[in-house]
Parts: sequence; structure tokens; C-alpha cells
Amino acid sequence: MKLNGVADLPEISPGDDIAALVAERAALEPGDVLTVASTIVSKAEGRTADLADYPVSGRAQEIADRIEAVAGEEKDPRFAQAVLEESTELLIDCPFLLAETRFGHIAPNAGIDRSNVPDHDLLLLPKRPSESAERIRAGLAQQGIEGIAVIVTDTCGRPFRHGQRGVAIGWAGMPASRDWRGERDRDGHELGVTVQSVVDELAAAANLITGEGAGGTPAVVIRDWDFGDHAGSDELFRAVEDDFIRQALREWRFDD
Amino acid sequence: MKLNGVADLPEISPGDDIAALVAERAALEPGDVLTVASTIVSKAEGRTADLADYPVSGRAQEIADRIEAVAGEEKDPRFAQAVLEESTELLIDCPFLLAETRFGHIAPNAGIDRSNVPDHDLLLLPKRPSESAERIRAGLAQQGIEGIAVIVTDTCGRPFRHGQRGVAIGWAGMPASRDWRGERDRDGHELGVTVQSVVDELAAAANLITGEGAGGTPAVVIRDWDFGDHAGSDELFRAVEDDFIRQALREWRFDD
Repeated sequence: MKLNGVADLPEISPGDDIAALVAERAALEPGDVLTVASTIVSKAEGRTADLADYPVSGRAQEIADRIEAVAGEEKDPRFAQAVLEESTELLIDCPFLLAETRFGHIAPNAGIDRSNVPDHDLLLLPKRPSESAERIRAGLAQQGIEGIAVIVTDTCGRPFRHGQRGVAIGWAGMPASRDWRGERDRDGHELGVTVQSVVDELAAAANLITGEGAGGTPAVVIRDWDFGDHAGSDELFRAVEDDFIRQALREWRFDD
Repeated sequence: MKLNGVADLPEISPGDDIAALVAERAALEPGDVLTVASTIVSKAEGRTADLADYPVSGRAQEIADRIEAVAGEEKDPRFAQAVLEESTELLIDCPFLLAETRFGHIAPNAGIDRSNVPDHDLLLLPKRPSESAERIRAGLAQQGIEGIAVIVTDTCGRPFRHGQRGVAIGWAGMPASRDWRGERDRDGHELGVTVQSVVDELAAAANLITGEGAGGTPAVVIRDWDFGDHAGSDELFRAVEDDFIRQALREWRFDD
């Protein structure tokens, strides 16, 4: 398995064709996985915004006031409003915002980025990243490059462990997971573990090259990796019924 | 960046020298990262056990009884006892056991495996996986192979997202994280995100080759990846003071 960054991608602007820009710079082959950082997908899709675009609701003002009162940290209520508009649920509303985006991904601030964007205040995540991945895949096919899987990646932190890591937020041309159900280990025991989130592992691998800031290398080509002869599944984001930690968060409130 | 599985490792037994077995099968070079699945590290360290080794305490019996009463699932109280003995805290005790191991890793059942082990009931995680990694690294150095970083990996699930992914539980010869603090994106904004957990990303990448069951390929060589010119940090496991989700779990109890 090999990973190579796509070199010399230009700064991306609204309307740019990422598939074409990648195809000009990388000799893609059938079976390759192309990872694309959400930063450049968002820029191509014009998902920039300004704080002035978010008139503050009562709820956003409350959130900002409470974070300031309890955590002693200044929070722009317009930013809280942007997070509310990009999300369906706040899992934590103080001392920071942990939100479920409209497409199911859970991330601090609904994944809204305050760096990485010139001339605007905010960079929002793509609206429907799996559709973005599918569009890039179709764009490559249009150039005659067939059989490429595309993963739109983000980086975020996680419970229990320090640090950020790359994750998939959208994918096309491959299932999200390998399902090992019913398969056996080499001693013949049935495997207790059933689902391996390969899109997340591919995103994590690519992030070793992309790094933070998505500076020079927001797109990575992964070659000679094989999904193998396993069942696939497209579930990636857990629903609350299926996630005890989300349930616990519903009953919890931060104390100072 | 390239990843290659170490082919043809034999079934590992207590006392086996993993460094020597890998060195015979892979031409390692300075700068390589070697990932080793915890299953084979545990086997080499004799970390197998049997349910009969765990006389049941009152707490273990209570846990098993409650899981049966509330979740309707049979739980062997001896297994609950094994989890208690391998952990310092249960974050969730019903309907499943989410435990912090003695070395700080949080995993269902304290990472105790009921598959992957012939002739015994249980395979425990290595006692101190970073020391295991350091021993493998020292073993390689003894063979004249210097400058290898070693990561001991596990797979486990996580909140918010379906599926398992590879994670690091021990490491030697490199820092756990890259620290981007103070660095800037290409638009000159200071990066909000500061710490990238590269050992977890390397473990996730390797798990694309290892897969579940750790069947044929429990060791992977990663070449041509560079930590780069960043500060490093060795924090990987969050303390409870630093983790709101652990705090929320302390106040939560599963309801049927």
C-alpha cells in the first residue's frame, strides 16, 4: 500500500473543479482511493461565511453568555449562531460546542473552521460530503478516469484520547466499512469484532501526509490497498439510540 | 509513504522474540515505523488467562447480575472480574463494560480478547505496552537495526462513529503526537488545532493491512513517512479532569 500527496494544487476558489485539478497533477489508476480534505471541497463549493451573516438568536446569545459566565471564555454569539445553523443537536453546549452536523458527523463547532480561509471569517463543512465525493468521482470519470473511490476528510478530536486525527465525512465508490461478521481468526474462533471503519482508517492514513492546516497537500492518492473479499456497510455515524455516550451527554450539564 | 505487511510470522508463543522474528522477515531501515498488533505482543508476553483464574468478587457478581437483569444478556461474572482486575475505573458498567486499563487506554472490556487465543479463554492486553514497544525496539537494535520506531496497536470502537479502527496503545522511538502550536496555515492564520495524534494515525493505517483477527499480518512496516519539523508530545490518554465525556459518564447510569 502506498500513499502519495498530490503536489502543487493551487489555492481553491468557488467553482473550481477539484477532479480536473487533481487529474492534471496525479496519474490516477483504477482501484486508487483519492482523499480530499474538506477544506478544499468547502472552498470549491463556496462554503465560506462571515460572522455578520448570522443574526444572533436568543439561544445563541444564551450559549455565549453561559460559556463566558461559567468558563470565563469570550464566545462570539454570532459564531454560536453559525454552529446552531449548521447542526441538528448540540451534544455539549458549555464550555465548548460539540454538535451533530446535518449529515450526522459529530464535531466541535459543527466542524466550522476559523482558519484556512482568506477574506472570510468562517469555512463551513460541505453540506453533504458524500455527494461532494460522488461529484469528484463523477468528474474523474468524465476525464476517463474510472474506478476511483473518493473520501472527503476532516480532522477532529475525540473522547478519551488526546489529539486530532483524520476521519472520513463523505465517501463514494466504496463502502464505509468492512464487515467481518461470521469470519474466523486463524485459530478458528469466530471474530467478536465485526465492523472495521476503513474509510476512517484511510482518512487517518492520508492525514499523516496532509497534516493540519491542509497546507500544501490536501489531496492524497492511496494505491495498492484492497477492500478485499468482505461484506461492506455504509453506516458511519451512530444514532443516539445506538450510542450510550450520547445518551449520557443528554443528561449532563457542565458545572463550574 | 509505503506500508508493507511482514509476511509469514508464525503463531506466537510465550517467550518468543518478536524483534528477531520480524528482523528475519523484513529488511528494516532507519526511519521505518514498525507496528505490531497487541495480540502477538500479549502472546509473546504470556498474557493469556482462563476464566477459572478469576474468583468472582461481590462487585463482579453485581455487574453480571445487573447486565442480565437490565440488558437481558448473559455475562460470565468471572469475565467481569477479569475486566475489573485489568482496569482502574469502569466508565460504563451496564449494558457493557467500558474500562480504563491500568496504562490509561479506554476500551470495552479493558481490551480483553476472547478470540485470537488457542488453548486459553482470554488474551489480556500487554501490561505496559510502551515498555513492550521499547523492548522490541531494543531487540531490533541488538540485531544491528537502529532508528526504528515501534507502535503496539489495538483495535476498538469509539463514541459517535460506527466500527472499529486501529489505535496505538504503546510506542517507542517517536513522540505520540505532532504539536502544531504556533504554526500557521498557508493564509497566515495561526492554526487553531494544535496536536495531531500521529501514532493513532499510523496504527489506523497499519490496520488497513492487518485487519481484524490479526490473522496473517500482525506486523506492518511503514516507510518514507517523516515526523517532520514539529514539536512532539507523549500525551495520548486523556485524564478525567480533561475529558467532559468521562465526567458526563460518571453521572450517568443505564436505564432499561
